[in-house]
Amino acid sequence: MLQVETVKQVREYVAKARAAGKRIGLVPTMGALHQGHLSLVKASKAQCACTVVSIFVNPTQFGPDEDLQAYPCTLDADRQACHDLGVDLLFVPTVQQMYPQPQLTWVNVDKLPDHLCGQSRPQHFRGVCTVVAKLFNIVQPDLAYFGQKDAQQLAILRRMAADLNLPVQIQACPIVREPNGLAMSSRNRYLSSQQRQQARCLNDALTHAQQLINAGQRDADTLIQAIRQIIDACPDAQVDYISLVDPELLQPMSVLDRDALIALAVKIGPARLIDNRLVRPPGTTDTAKQT
Amino acid sequence: MLQVETVKQVREYVAKARAAGKRIGLVPTMGALHQGHLSLVKASKAQCACTVVSIFVNPTQFGPDEDLQAYPCTLDADRQACHDLGVDLLFVPTVQQMYPQPQLTWVNVDKLPDHLCGQSRPQHFRGVCTVVAKLFNIVQPDLAYFGQKDAQQLAILRRMAADLNLPVQIQACPIVREPNGLAMSSRNRYLSSQQRQQARCLNDALTHAQQLINAGQRDADTLIQAIRQIIDACPDAQVDYISLVDPELLQPMSVLDRDALIALAVKIGPARLIDNRLVRPPGTTDTAKQT
Repeated sequence: MLQVETVKQVREYVAKARAAGKRIGLVPTMGALHQGHLSLVKASKAQCACTVVSIFVNPTQFGPDEDLQAYPCTLDADRQACHDLGVDLLFVPTVQQMYPQPQLTWVNVDKLPDHLCGQSRPQHFRGVCTVVAKLFNIVQPDLAYFGQKDAQQLAILRRMAADLNLPVQIQACPIVREPNGLAMSSRNRYLSSQQRQQARCLNDALTHAQQLINAGQRDADTLIQAIRQIIDACPDAQVDYISLVDPELLQPMSVLDRDALIALAVKIGPARLIDNRLVRPPGTTDTAKQT
Repeated sequence: MLQVETVKQVREYVAKARAAGKRIGLVPTMGALHQGHLSLVKASKAQCACTVVSIFVNPTQFGPDEDLQAYPCTLDADRQACHDLGVDLLFVPTVQQMYPQPQLTWVNVDKLPDHLCGQSRPQHFRGVCTVVAKLFNIVQPDLAYFGQKDAQQLAILRRMAADLNLPVQIQACPIVREPNGLAMSSRNRYLSSQQRQQARCLNDALTHAQQLINAGQRDADTLIQAIRQIIDACPDAQVDYISLVDPELLQPMSVLDRDALIALAVKIGPARLIDNRLVRPPGTTDTAKQT
């Protein structure tokens, strides 16, 4: 595995791989890698002859009151994990390398960021779209891998890729969970062991909602209330939002008459956690692109 | 020369050319081709083994009161001219092909559109950047050719390419002029023969300013006044702006102490014409990237 810091080095490496006829897979990350990230790496390894992992804690996607400074950094462990999985190229740029001059150009997706996390993180997705566009242009991957855990990010990046005709296929990978059901997240490190136990309520609540749906419940408010009840029972949990939305456009749905995304964000102690489930009410057919 | 309408056809064609080791040049146009466009095609032919010309009157860069509906279309002549110059691929997409669903994703460059034409055309450059980004992603050219006549567009696209790490080299080509000095433009067709004669005042005024600079004049206001006097002498001319700005960031300069761009927009009858000159005061050195 080669580790590089500069755009030029990435371009040279990838150009050779492409000239050799290799399919290029990109796994963009902010480091602090966990099993969720590693599942993306494994997916890329299974489909691509050349797998590039980027580790870059992108300042432009953090709000002024967010955890940019505190964001976990475990570079040695990340490097070892990438090496062990057979990653070909590890791209660890500096902020100066990614933003050598004041960034004046931004990729904005309208409407989709008005929902879910976008409401409490106003410029977040502008930063995500812009840095991902940059990484796509630097690496020029054939496929790029993202976790279903960040469902809104995934929907927005898919729309960006379609709208801008980006020559890359966006691949979604399922949420990876800890044994108690807690979705893997770099921010789980912020939790005490007691909070980590409580944090299972997010997945428990989604599972309960899924059971209600399987039993015929289609009213969004009823489902959201049922989820809220379970989460409110955790002493340290504070709900940011619980929403049932269209999986592509992220608009709230009042009746579950087709595929939907149930998404939630909950603060538990120092960590803001998100989780979600794609649900399909029994008797309906596939209406959303879930590939 | 092959003419195609779909993104898929372009991708297939260009993939083959690239696999054959050919360098790809792109000349994005809105059609109504004139000698200015053709100079871009010739530049691409000189540098690239595969030249792609796109003709697409992009609705998203026209304001509601602008000339989208009236914009000249001379497709047969355009096709013949491209054929005669040895263009390899002519891409003439429909609006539906370029915008198959509501466009939610926009590429915005901050600050640079606050000057010059951007002031009277508020969403124009957002539309330009977005469609050019799309065309870049569809064609994936090694080089892309733009005329110096649209100096603000050129500065904005260069910034976009740098900020987004677009894997394309932006090539600027000099303004091509009619015998009387009028810069070639598709919108010159809107002029009567009398107006066309008057329209030479734009270039005459810029030439006069250049002479003043060569003679030592460095005060922006004085230069702008001298230009205005010449243009105001034309009965049908109505100045939109005359500005002396930094060639990269397009901020107004009060003193000509380094390379500068003198840019102007003038309405003559039904046509809004633009012209510009890159100037360097004697005794100063190259400070701006002009390649």
